[in-house]
Amino acid sequence: MKAVVLLDFWASPFGQRCRIALAEKGVEYEYREEKIRGDKSPLLLESNPVYKKIPVLIHDSKPVCESLIIVLYIDEAWPDRAPLLPADRYARAQARFWADFVDKKVCESALNLWKLKGEAQEAAKEEFIEILRLLECELGDKKYFGGDVFGFVDIALVPFTTWFYSCETYAGFSVEEAVPKLVAWSKRCLERESVANSLYDPVKIYEYVKTIFG
Amino acid sequence: MKAVVLLDFWASPFGQRCRIALAEKGVEYEYREEKIRGDKSPLLLESNPVYKKIPVLIHDSKPVCESLIIVLYIDEAWPDRAPLLPADRYARAQARFWADFVDKKVCESALNLWKLKGEAQEAAKEEFIEILRLLECELGDKKYFGGDVFGFVDIALVPFTTWFYSCETYAGFSVEEAVPKLVAWSKRCLERESVANSLYDPVKIYEYVKTIFG
Repeated sequence: MKAVVLLDFWASPFGQRCRIALAEKGVEYEYREEKIRGDKSPLLLESNPVYKKIPVLIHDSKPVCESLIIVLYIDEAWPDRAPLLPADRYARAQARFWADFVDKKVCESALNLWKLKGEAQEAAKEEFIEILRLLECELGDKKYFGGDVFGFVDIALVPFTTWFYSCETYAGFSVEEAVPKLVAWSKRCLERESVANSLYDPVKIYEYVKTIFG
Repeated sequence: MKAVVLLDFWASPFGQRCRIALAEKGVEYEYREEKIRGDKSPLLLESNPVYKKIPVLIHDSKPVCESLIIVLYIDEAWPDRAPLLPADRYARAQARFWADFVDKKVCESALNLWKLKGEAQEAAKEEFIEILRLLECELGDKKYFGGDVFGFVDIALVPFTTWFYSCETYAGFSVEEAVPKLVAWSKRCLERESVANSLYDPVKIYEYVKTIFG
């Protein structure tokens, strides 16, 4: 086993956050694909006994669980390259707030778009757009959420942008029309090798979403 | 307005976390009680436009929202006294994991005990006890969650121990029988002035819970 191992699943936005952070830091690691359905590996069960879920980062045989906590750990374990959190303490608190906002709002809201139909889906769509507008408003005219430097909030959010095509296809709307600046930001992020190499084609994600939500 | 203001509500375990952290650091501040029902103050609406909820810490006119993010901010803004996060980066990741676990599991599970009846309540009770057992197992024989030093996980969890009496009264069981070491830990925490001065009598909390859940 290498010194750094990531237990992950290819389509997981949570796992993708960890992959981006490791790539930004230039950390070599062993990627181990887990089954999302069916038997979990003994290593996963032993490394994350509380949630039994990917992603798990194992560093020098010690497991770290929960994607944002993993990204913070990566930032602290490899501090010499590509700092992910801002140096200013107030800016750090703001970065934590918005990454937490992504966790609390974006995922569930997108899942609702795929699960629901008719009026309930229409309401979910309005809610999803409102969430994206809040994020776009926080981004403002900055290059990245933290300003000129790619960082924690960008990493928290960018994997979910590969869900936009699925959201549009299920609920019949254009994300780019609703939040053009946010879509422009996602394209800027994709110009980074760390992001481009960690994410998948939105159409491939859509094919996967269809196998679950029909 | 003082340099540090806390917008809060007396019975909020989330607000109590901030009060304990400020007391541990010896920070003087202005406490402003907000209504939990009815009109929110213009200052609250302006300081937390996303969630419109207490607690909010306002430091030098800049607002910080979400209780665990506030506690981390307090730790970084007043670093010279009572460090709340461990110095070791792996221990820090573990502290973040368990504080996050409290946020994800304890509150909702306790609310279910109060909301539900019959078999559903029985299932909620089993789940609540299971959550407390996981926390007790993590505590082990340590004085505090971080070892000998009172810190982040203690602050995240201890306000919820004033809910135990309400949980017991609603669902008919003894928390102390289920998790004796965790109850002993909560008594140790209450010996600290910072904790004792920030929490309320569990019977007063129960009277309040009854006004909401009947």
